[in-house]
Amino acid sequence: MIYLDNAATSFPKPEKVYEAIMSVMKDYGANPGRSGHKLALKAGRGIYETRELLSKLFNISNPMNIIFTSNATDGLNLAIKGILKPGDHVITTSMEHNSVLRPLKALEKLGIETSIVQCDSKGCISVQDIEDNINEDTKLIITTHASNVTGTIFPIKEIGNIADKNNIIYMVDAAQTAGVYDIDVENMKIDILAFPGHKSLLGPQGTGGVYIREGIDVMQMKEGGTGSKSDLLIQPEMLPDKFESGTPNTPGIIGLGAGVQYILDKGIENIRKHEKNMTKYFLDELKKIELVRIYGPCDAEKQAPVVSINIGDEDSSEVSYILDKVFDIGVRPGLHCAPLAHKTIGTFEQGTVRFSLGTFTTHQDIEKALEAIKNIVNEI
Amino acid sequence: MIYLDNAATSFPKPEKVYEAIMSVMKDYGANPGRSGHKLALKAGRGIYETRELLSKLFNISNPMNIIFTSNATDGLNLAIKGILKPGDHVITTSMEHNSVLRPLKALEKLGIETSIVQCDSKGCISVQDIEDNINEDTKLIITTHASNVTGTIFPIKEIGNIADKNNIIYMVDAAQTAGVYDIDVENMKIDILAFPGHKSLLGPQGTGGVYIREGIDVMQMKEGGTGSKSDLLIQPEMLPDKFESGTPNTPGIIGLGAGVQYILDKGIENIRKHEKNMTKYFLDELKKIELVRIYGPCDAEKQAPVVSINIGDEDSSEVSYILDKVFDIGVRPGLHCAPLAHKTIGTFEQGTVRFSLGTFTTHQDIEKALEAIKNIVNEI
Repeated sequence: MIYLDNAATSFPKPEKVYEAIMSVMKDYGANPGRSGHKLALKAGRGIYETRELLSKLFNISNPMNIIFTSNATDGLNLAIKGILKPGDHVITTSMEHNSVLRPLKALEKLGIETSIVQCDSKGCISVQDIEDNINEDTKLIITTHASNVTGTIFPIKEIGNIADKNNIIYMVDAAQTAGVYDIDVENMKIDILAFPGHKSLLGPQGTGGVYIREGIDVMQMKEGGTGSKSDLLIQPEMLPDKFESGTPNTPGIIGLGAGVQYILDKGIENIRKHEKNMTKYFLDELKKIELVRIYGPCDAEKQAPVVSINIGDEDSSEVSYILDKVFDIGVRPGLHCAPLAHKTIGTFEQGTVRFSLGTFTTHQDIEKALEAIKNIVNEI
Repeated sequence: MIYLDNAATSFPKPEKVYEAIMSVMKDYGANPGRSGHKLALKAGRGIYETRELLSKLFNISNPMNIIFTSNATDGLNLAIKGILKPGDHVITTSMEHNSVLRPLKALEKLGIETSIVQCDSKGCISVQDIEDNINEDTKLIITTHASNVTGTIFPIKEIGNIADKNNIIYMVDAAQTAGVYDIDVENMKIDILAFPGHKSLLGPQGTGGVYIREGIDVMQMKEGGTGSKSDLLIQPEMLPDKFESGTPNTPGIIGLGAGVQYILDKGIENIRKHEKNMTKYFLDELKKIELVRIYGPCDAEKQAPVVSINIGDEDSSEVSYILDKVFDIGVRPGLHCAPLAHKTIGTFEQGTVRFSLGTFTTHQDIEKALEAIKNIVNEI
């Protein structure tokens, strides 16, 4: 299959990721941080190395401030619910994923107010609009780094500056960018960074994490065994233990480390350059095809390698079905768990056909996708 | 290494578990339940098959009532916090793990009262004591199926009957038994069953789950994209989507399915018989060694394959360190994240040296462990 669904999860992974996971499982598949024997210690070291690699990638000074979660959603929930209290106000945008919008909707019942800043029809945010929504109760600003529907890249450094200036916590959902775009939590004044492990960081599914800046008070969502302070019935306050109860996904996390190592070795700028080139070519050629509507910036400099289109008024699911069945091309149709983004770009009824590229996407993959789209256009 | 730390996580796993995980990752590592292309559908089917296998093992009528979590702790927190409300009373025991005790301790602040029923010095619970603690606010009874410190097996069917008679929800922590001991949620009247995937169910770390009986109202802990009802900002009520936001651990869950298939193929009674035999031999021989104190029932019929000992007054960490360094035997010392259990058996200061057996433990492993213990006894 020509896999163009990397925004859902990257596939395939680098060979070293598979190898790392198998090595953990077959050679030292013990429980880290619990027992003190050599296999347990090796597993613990492996997990710590992943924290270090991620710290290097995101310029995080203390690796212990990275909390491993089962996916980005898990990290977003942890941080959103652990920070906000009744009476607080939060600002977010209309391009967010349900992993941000649904927790905020659930918190409304507890008296937490949300302002959703409307983006324009290409999914772009106005930084001024965010600033205009700040009030004295505003505790948190949450934005995506890039839309999972249109790829639209947000000016997170500018938003971080506004948050910083107003003493507001800034949380970034890096689901579509971590591993491809530069993220520097210091320079960009990001206080909370939620990321999936299984997308552009090239780790396996079942991994993700959240960085929490030192000093930000976040309540844990769950308690349990941490392998530390086992004599106490209360959850330890030290990081990452406070947020990492229970046996971690050791092979997954160490596999994620191998993914991050691959990125550091190859150079994130080289990965980004390749994906940008592919996206640019795809957009340029798409623009030439009659009946194809492209959403978002339509500019590889302004969007992550996510391209949403429609063909005339054809249902996005139907088009995706044909791409799969007839052309063996895997994409994702529908609303992509981001209903307000589709209202923003005007596709709430039709959905979009989303092509998302990855580091292993080839020029030939794009050519075949274009050919398939042309074929479908000619058929209708 | 002679690995006798299976109560922390089982190691190794059956070859088919490794194969299943690699096959998912290399052949169809797409995001299940999101996109509609063939790889995504295959991943979704694989996850459903694991639900079916677990349903067969635990006699669960509807596989959709199984929620996948990242470990047992995650499932316990979800169910405990999703069920209990201010004013509720919950009964648990002094042999529980911190994955039960710490969430309950945290809930005290919200006005949820916990009665901790004291077990005897072998870790045995009196069913009558549980019944005597029931009051009109009692909403939930939570017990382990077998202690992770002493292996003591709890009479969960009897407790289930009491809960049922009194219209109280019964939650079982099957961390030490799932995959070795018979668990039948209907016959045993278990309403909530939390299990790790990575212990005796032989799946990888990063997996676990919780069964929630139809009709029990449990609030979700997190919201996010579910691949269903994506047009709505509120979390869908349908199971398992309500509780499974974000990308699941597809390779892990399908690997867990391979583990459960291995158990079903081999016959859980055969696995149990082997582990019982090993435990019996180990206990019988340990009893002959001077200075060795064995905790718990000291009876393979009454305990899971978990054997806690001490050698004289030696620190449990020191003994475990020697077992690892000198004899290449991996065990776990200390409190095993179950402080009240150690208070119950009188080892809160010293901890215990815990040997935990698995399906791949051999007679030779036990012989070597015994020999090492004798050596240590002779040295001190």
